[in-house]
Amino acid sequence: MIVRNLAGIRASECNIKSENNTWESARMLLKKDGMGFSFHITTLYAGAKIQLQYLNHFESVFVMSGLGSIQNLANGETHVLEPGVMYALDKHDDHILRIEKEITCACTFNPPVSGREVHDENGSYPADVD
Amino acid sequence: MIVRNLAGIRASECNIKSENNTWESARMLLKKDGMGFSFHITTLYAGAKIQLQYLNHFESVFVMSGLGSIQNLANGETHVLEPGVMYALDKHDDHILRIEKEITCACTFNPPVSGREVHDENGSYPADVD
Repeated sequence: MIVRNLAGIRASECNIKSENNTWESARMLLKKDGMGFSFHITTLYAGAKIQLQYLNHFESVFVMSGLGSIQNLANGETHVLEPGVMYALDKHDDHILRIEKEITCACTFNPPVSGREVHDENGSYPADVD
Repeated sequence: MIVRNLAGIRASECNIKSENNTWESARMLLKKDGMGFSFHITTLYAGAKIQLQYLNHFESVFVMSGLGSIQNLANGETHVLEPGVMYALDKHDDHILRIEKEITCACTFNPPVSGREVHDENGSYPADVD
């Protein structure tokens, strides 16, 4: 059994901040934990506009606090992000996040992230960096 | 892209209540969604004492609100459950949850739950009911 605390993870090397200061992510579970997925508590800063497409991962995001939107670039549709909303990128969807009030969300990645990835020019993570 | 709302899931057949009135679980993502994991927002009722062991699944649980504890029956250790705490059952750990104030938590299961499982006599889910 693994037991971890968000405050402890945020104070550790498992808390990753984006280079352009749009988000940070506390990696609560990583590939090395052997769960078959990784689990992150991510903060998206107010004012951020972030385009992402995870070509090598499925990701689900559950919004716990804050306000923003997600635009699906496949069809242009925009969905409000507010507490209780979940989106799941089941088609490796190219998308834009727009953050109005700082969002905190719970994210699951399959396959699990190792913790050393950085977003590439497509806003994607590589397939495996181990 | 899948977009769902907790209130909508709670009002649907994807909201499962335990027979003994100790928990309910809103299945935000299930096996059929093809993400390779399932994702549930689960409520554990105040006063509940629940013994579980998922012999066929890995589960992680992130506590969003409430207060309680988890006891690891392999070594007897007890850990406080409060907002920000995550536990991960990486060894199919036999455990007891004790709920002091109603807990709401975000749960990920690998392999994904199909939504039709019920806990068996061990507090486990079957390997696959499809």
